[in-house]
Amino acid sequence: MIIDLRSDTVTQPTPSMRVAMANAPVGDDVYGDDPTVNQLEKLAAELLGKEAALFVPSGTFGNQLAIMTHTQRGNEVLVGDACHILMHEVGAAAVLSGVQIRTFPVLDDGIDVEKLGLMLRGDDIHFPDTGLICMENAKSSGKTVPLANMEAVYALAQSQNIPIHIDGARIFNAALALGVEAKEIAAQGDSVNVCLSKGLCAPVGSLLLGTKKFIKKARKNRKLMGGGLRQAGILAAAGIIGLTEMVSRLEEDHQNARYLANRLEEIDSCSVLRNRLDINMVFFTLPESVITESTLVAGLLEKNVKISGQEDGEYRFVTNHGVSSDDIDWVIESMKTLVSRYS
Amino acid sequence: MIIDLRSDTVTQPTPSMRVAMANAPVGDDVYGDDPTVNQLEKLAAELLGKEAALFVPSGTFGNQLAIMTHTQRGNEVLVGDACHILMHEVGAAAVLSGVQIRTFPVLDDGIDVEKLGLMLRGDDIHFPDTGLICMENAKSSGKTVPLANMEAVYALAQSQNIPIHIDGARIFNAALALGVEAKEIAAQGDSVNVCLSKGLCAPVGSLLLGTKKFIKKARKNRKLMGGGLRQAGILAAAGIIGLTEMVSRLEEDHQNARYLANRLEEIDSCSVLRNRLDINMVFFTLPESVITESTLVAGLLEKNVKISGQEDGEYRFVTNHGVSSDDIDWVIESMKTLVSRYS
Amino acid sequence: MIIDLRSDTVTQPTPSMRVAMANAPVGDDVYGDDPTVNQLEKLAAELLGKEAALFVPSGTFGNQLAIMTHTQRGNEVLVGDACHILMHEVGAAAVLSGVQIRTFPVLDDGIDVEKLGLMLRGDDIHFPDTGLICMENAKSSGKTVPLANMEAVYALAQSQNIPIHIDGARIFNAALALGVEAKEIAAQGDSVNVCLSKGLCAPVGSLLLGTKKFIKKARKNRKLMGGGLRQAGILAAAGIIGLTEMVSRLEEDHQNARYLANRLEEIDSCSVLRNRLDINMVFFTLPESVITESTLVAGLLEKNVKISGQEDGEYRFVTNHGVSSDDIDWVIESMKTLVSRYS
Amino acid sequence: MIIDLRSDTVTQPTPSMRVAMANAPVGDDVYGDDPTVNQLEKLAAELLGKEAALFVPSGTFGNQLAIMTHTQRGNEVLVGDACHILMHEVGAAAVLSGVQIRTFPVLDDGIDVEKLGLMLRGDDIHFPDTGLICMENAKSSGKTVPLANMEAVYALAQSQNIPIHIDGARIFNAALALGVEAKEIAAQGDSVNVCLSKGLCAPVGSLLLGTKKFIKKARKNRKLMGGGLRQAGILAAAGIIGLTEMVSRLEEDHQNARYLANRLEEIDSCSVLRNRLDINMVFFTLPESVITESTLVAGLLEKNVKISGQEDGEYRFVTNHGVSSDDIDWVIESMKTLVSRYS
Ligand SMILES: [Ca+2]
Ligand SMILES: [Ca+2]
Ligand SMILES: [Ca+2]
Ligand SMILES: [Ca+2]
Ligand SMILES: [Ca+2]
Ligand SMILES: [Ca+2]
Repeated sequence: MIIDLRSDTVTQPTPSMRVAMANAPVGDDVYGDDPTVNQLEKLAAELLGKEAALFVPSGTFGNQLAIMTHTQRGNEVLVGDACHILMHEVGAAAVLSGVQIRTFPVLDDGIDVEKLGLMLRGDDIHFPDTGLICMENAKSSGKTVPLANMEAVYALAQSQNIPIHIDGARIFNAALALGVEAKEIAAQGDSVNVCLSKGLCAPVGSLLLGTKKFIKKARKNRKLMGGGLRQAGILAAAGIIGLTEMVSRLEEDHQNARYLANRLEEIDSCSVLRNRLDINMVFFTLPESVITESTLVAGLLEKNVKISGQEDGEYRFVTNHGVSSDDIDWVIESMKTLVSRYS
Repeated sequence: MIIDLRSDTVTQPTPSMRVAMANAPVGDDVYGDDPTVNQLEKLAAELLGKEAALFVPSGTFGNQLAIMTHTQRGNEVLVGDACHILMHEVGAAAVLSGVQIRTFPVLDDGIDVEKLGLMLRGDDIHFPDTGLICMENAKSSGKTVPLANMEAVYALAQSQNIPIHIDGARIFNAALALGVEAKEIAAQGDSVNVCLSKGLCAPVGSLLLGTKKFIKKARKNRKLMGGGLRQAGILAAAGIIGLTEMVSRLEEDHQNARYLANRLEEIDSCSVLRNRLDINMVFFTLPESVITESTLVAGLLEKNVKISGQEDGEYRFVTNHGVSSDDIDWVIESMKTLVSRYS
Repeated sequence: MIIDLRSDTVTQPTPSMRVAMANAPVGDDVYGDDPTVNQLEKLAAELLGKEAALFVPSGTFGNQLAIMTHTQRGNEVLVGDACHILMHEVGAAAVLSGVQIRTFPVLDDGIDVEKLGLMLRGDDIHFPDTGLICMENAKSSGKTVPLANMEAVYALAQSQNIPIHIDGARIFNAALALGVEAKEIAAQGDSVNVCLSKGLCAPVGSLLLGTKKFIKKARKNRKLMGGGLRQAGILAAAGIIGLTEMVSRLEEDHQNARYLANRLEEIDSCSVLRNRLDINMVFFTLPESVITESTLVAGLLEKNVKISGQEDGEYRFVTNHGVSSDDIDWVIESMKTLVSRYS
Repeated sequence: MIIDLRSDTVTQPTPSMRVAMANAPVGDDVYGDDPTVNQLEKLAAELLGKEAALFVPSGTFGNQLAIMTHTQRGNEVLVGDACHILMHEVGAAAVLSGVQIRTFPVLDDGIDVEKLGLMLRGDDIHFPDTGLICMENAKSSGKTVPLANMEAVYALAQSQNIPIHIDGARIFNAALALGVEAKEIAAQGDSVNVCLSKGLCAPVGSLLLGTKKFIKKARKNRKLMGGGLRQAGILAAAGIIGLTEMVSRLEEDHQNARYLANRLEEIDSCSVLRNRLDINMVFFTLPESVITESTLVAGLLEKNVKISGQEDGEYRFVTNHGVSSDDIDWVIESMKTLVSRYS
């Protein structure tokens, strides 16, 4: 068996999901006829406190669909520096929606609301209109954003009639870490995107949520983007189990992440980024002089452990449904052996 | 039970597909780790005679991904008049790829190759470059395009170094009607898109096929468009059955279509468009003076028969896996009753 | 001296224009401070019967700015087949505005309004919204469109709340040919684009006209497209003379075109397209077997006559301010000599 | 007479420019026939040390044309924070070119080359390709970038085969401030944009420069963007004088800027941003508690002095051809009066 720490996207559908998928009643969702998709969308809307939901093929799809639906060609979209939309969505917003992305800093205690306020564009022939603000919680960096900070940002946005989209790919992780309900986070924006295929273990899919009017418009844009699926109830069946049975399980991943962080610190040269250890992601540095990236990746693979290479000089290990505390012990022992062999 | 003639997209996954989906080994396909997706892509490439294949969420996604991957911003894309890309993909090519669509006529005996040749843009500062030609076979109109005509178009395109994309949403229907192998049709272009969720009954998905180089580039553009799925092997498992077990079944749909056409002609005022009766789609007219569209749609629905309203003054009935010849008899008797009641 | 029949864009500014340009009071038009630009825009608005006008760098700029300002990303724009926007603007609408172009036929007696009505998109998830209809008068083909036909199209568009843009690059030529006021043509749409640098002889520029609200929005989009000029009053000064002194002169060009057509028919193998001889453009065919395109172009150039090569098998000779009836005699004699030498 | 400190774009064409414009030989530049445009492009290419040049309607046009010509749809373009392309071009790059903008910090001593290096995108399915890096010199902030810093950035870019575009709207101001030739700055990139209508006093236009191959491609894209002008030699004639006679005059503007800075500091609450006082732009703060923005703007206007409101809390006064040192004295006395009246 492989221990896969690259991401929580690697999670496998659970046995009960497989049964549900095999038995799901389905219909053609482009016609609105799939009962299982409809059930999932209804369930998600209730759970996240939004009027309506829309099943989409991926998290990137959900974020980009939100951008396309909120904005007009030529708008400026404000996003946090280093967020997924800017860094890991292949530059899609400019291609698909013709919008300019500009970044605001997100600090350890959240977004500087005053600075953000200064970034909103006034009425000037040289300026694009500010069409959307995006917040991410939990952030790609592993940190959460305090609810009060999100509230302050949303208040600012509403005062200027600028919509807010929340990238809540790991909203349930964020809610757990912050000790709030997911719907309290979702309430801080006009739309929110939620992933089913990460910690929740569904094989495929995300949900975009918002008002009925917004989701109606998004449904058409989803078709434009090629995301109108047919008998998608197969996937939705697993999503329903994800939302109803798997949310409470995320606590394990968070505990395992803290355990992994502690054990990594047993390795002298490992420096864990403790200030970003909020959810199921452990970021740390390990100098190339101690062990090179390629040696570590290849060495662990020989021990049946898959990790990603560094990004911006940091390793990221992600705990997930397929990783137990015993697995973590195995990873640490393997790393110790490798480090001692090469240093 | 509903008899659904709106499209062959309404097909349900078969029992063996449900078993296969429940048991499919899966992995994270964004990392290239899903064995079932990999198996489907390999199988499809062999079957269609292309170097490589890529699983995508829908037919619209596959066509638009092909356009994005073949072209550069500002190119002109030549497509047949009334084709799916122009008429039924929400204007996506302009939004997603920034390309101008221009149409060439497709006549009953195929594309006028000489006229098409005159439409290729020369070197002039006022002209966009011709970046792509799209052919559709079978066409959305129900007609097939002769293989020799496709060969002539491809020869022209190759002589000018212009790539060809084939919208083969119903390529296996076309092959059956033309009495050729699907790969012979696929050979008339640089890329081809094939749907799994229509007559082949898989719940979700299409395949885009082409050279390894093209598919590598398309894989990245698929991520940009939000079509990078995770444990997509669930869906691919059904697709494999579609390609291996369901292709030969299409003959039934074609026979049923001809049977449906014959029986429709029993209704005096029904005029079947016989010259487009090549595959599983029956187009016909029925004057509003005899029975209005809304009356017919609602009246049949009461009899558990779902049909679409007219488009451009024509009704389209599509035979599919869920429609037997007995069902067709029921449809015809219901229509006769309705027509006699209202006229 | 060269006789230049390639286009009426080759016209030179007149001596009085040069004086006016040398003496024009100017200011920074991005700030709205250029009195001469303001005067031109006011004058044009009055002349064409629109609320407001905007000076733009070119006819292509004006048309594309209208498209950008009327539409939203993803709209469908209906244009006449073979119109300038489709054929000679480098595919710009898809790039700049993300809109899909679809063509309606324009016949000798104008647009088939019933067919056009069927092309307007209904409410369907597969359809882009119809965002704009463009008419061209005079057409690039040399023909005018009857005013009554334009009225019928505008009535249709207004009944569906779809805006109309008129490409009036040669609107004064059209008005002359139709025996109406230019403002009567301009009244058949929500916006109109008018060229100053063709028959009117201004060196640079066009005007986009519409409601105040539309022009305000267009002014910002003009900046986005890089068309915010500074001391543009220099050019506007010539434009004012174009509008006030040069419109009546177009009659000469029309007479010369008819004279040229008559004389071309003295050449046996010349076939003038008489049904399109409405304005200052003479289209004709001359078989390659009689004289090849390259021979004709080069041979005339030796005689100081500049012509364009064929497009779609037709030659186009355009009369303009720099072409007198004596010049036409010289052209015909030169052609006769060349044809007799080579045939 | 108005004293206009809003920008150096407000400069008027000089008397010799007006004479030159009145007498310029012109032709249709879309056909390449305008001798004066050709002369200007040749002259500029020599002066800036590039193979070829292209006359464009504005600085925004030139920058956006460079972006369109260097990049492909979906690329990421790296620009300095607070640069003109990001802040003052209406978000055009996303609309016109479909590219994502990402910012690198530009500090007082220039660009952090190491950090910039880390921003170049590697080969990953989540990443857009880095398609272009833009440098600005002089910067919109009033500062220049040291030549050695530009060289280091260009070396990095060349090592990764990434093109560099230089926004040299005020390249001659930068050259003067740095004590180098403008062509030495232009040599630090593959393309450069130079404005004629600012300190150089031409009424309209900029120049985009690069290799012959690049400019050929840009010429076609210029047509797409609507910037193909006809008898543009009228404007080019003024541009020639700008390049040949007005460059040396910029020294006056720089001296006046320093004089203005000194005098502003006589006003107690005025705080001049001395570290950005490199060219003809003086940035300073003046607290709202001392005098409000609207009071200052309106009060100076009554004294025939035009200034812009604050942007990001700063006033910007720009010296230019129409502003003498006596004018500056008048401005300062007027400000003193206003400040004392309201505080
Ligand atoms: Ca998963
Ligand atoms: Ca440690
Ligand atoms: Ca199906
Ligand atoms: Ca002219
Ligand atoms: Ca004749
Ligand atoms: Ca100026």
